[in-house]
Amino acid sequence: MSSSTKKAVVLLSGGLDSATTLGIARNEGFDCYAMTFRYGQRHNVEVECARRVAASLGVAEHRIIDIDLKQFGRSALTDDTLAVPKDREDIDDTSDIPISYVPARNTIFLSYALAWAEVLDAFDIFIGVNATDYSGYPDCRPEFIDAYEKMANLATAAAVTGTQKYSIHTPIIKLSKADIIKTGTSIGVDYSLTHSCYDPDPDNKPCARCDSCKLRLRGFQQANLTDPVQYAD
Amino acid sequence: MSSSTKKAVVLLSGGLDSATTLGIARNEGFDCYAMTFRYGQRHNVEVECARRVAASLGVAEHRIIDIDLKQFGRSALTDDTLAVPKDREDIDDTSDIPISYVPARNTIFLSYALAWAEVLDAFDIFIGVNATDYSGYPDCRPEFIDAYEKMANLATAAAVTGTQKYSIHTPIIKLSKADIIKTGTSIGVDYSLTHSCYDPDPDNKPCARCDSCKLRLRGFQQANLTDPVQYAD
Repeated sequence: MSSSTKKAVVLLSGGLDSATTLGIARNEGFDCYAMTFRYGQRHNVEVECARRVAASLGVAEHRIIDIDLKQFGRSALTDDTLAVPKDREDIDDTSDIPISYVPARNTIFLSYALAWAEVLDAFDIFIGVNATDYSGYPDCRPEFIDAYEKMANLATAAAVTGTQKYSIHTPIIKLSKADIIKTGTSIGVDYSLTHSCYDPDPDNKPCARCDSCKLRLRGFQQANLTDPVQYAD
Repeated sequence: MSSSTKKAVVLLSGGLDSATTLGIARNEGFDCYAMTFRYGQRHNVEVECARRVAASLGVAEHRIIDIDLKQFGRSALTDDTLAVPKDREDIDDTSDIPISYVPARNTIFLSYALAWAEVLDAFDIFIGVNATDYSGYPDCRPEFIDAYEKMANLATAAAVTGTQKYSIHTPIIKLSKADIIKTGTSIGVDYSLTHSCYDPDPDNKPCARCDSCKLRLRGFQQANLTDPVQYAD
């Protein structure tokens, strides 16, 4: 890449949404610095998927960061005593925040991304939040992202020196899952490398029954594409 | 404490400012949950000081969290190859951000505090930032705190359920160092337990020459009080 290429920090979970977001950032010409968290999630396999996705899309660097969100608990993703909901009838019901919500997770992830951006002299941060086919998480909504961006532009050295402003990019925030999949497919994102399930079986095969699997499967169906991932029987 | 006591998460570094902040939170009747970070700082001794301050002020719980900010570098506090500035003539000059600034540190600290507050059902977070006798850090200014509070109230489950709002308390933000010390002394904060130096000697004695030591020493002098801490020769 040329030295004039703009750098971006891209949050990458190993799931479908963040893989697409990385593909889009790369497609827009950014030199991508991917950041993944091993935070105590029960679907730790996604970290390995993130590694493969990052390699396949050719990032400048991939940083995997260990943080312990398990200590706070209160989420089925980090607390083994809480069951991941399965076979929910209405996956579009966002009136209650589901038990898979991890307290302040995206706030923490973005804060690490901001720290890395600051030392990289990068002013662009990408996050694959989605507020259409999603589970009603508060930290996936556009108003949260806007407030985070404002805060970031007051938190950092650049806020005082006034050189440049940070942008938090959310290229898939308003897309349906089907449109995310179609977009990613058109720019060469390999979904066979991704993992979306909250509660994979011992062989790390996705369950097809949690909200995340159901949203993914419906997305592929609506996009008239086949999900290349093999599900548990 | 009665069950009706309100809980607060209090960021506690082991320094003078955060010890005073914890004292104030306790004095206001909060049941305090102290949070300290071992983040790769060269003055790691402050974590031990935080432990003693938390014990002396009787917190409900003290959580010490390991995070790695050393990996990002670009601060004299986390990068051993960068020297901590000593004997600066004008410690009130905040026109440049000093090399002791740690990228996005307070943003990350507050984000962990927010996660803990969320699972504790606490809506009050205390941070001992100061924008008077300080070093010009962007993440110590009132406008940063205001923006963080707004973001926090969009990031979390309570933002959607609309139950309660988070408050980020900064009780010493506008006090001079002398007034911080007088306040803390009046409510029983034991400054002999605190540590402010960025670059202590091998015996962990403060240097008396870094900005943080100089601000502290001047504060005690202006308050007509004696700093109970023993400095390096």
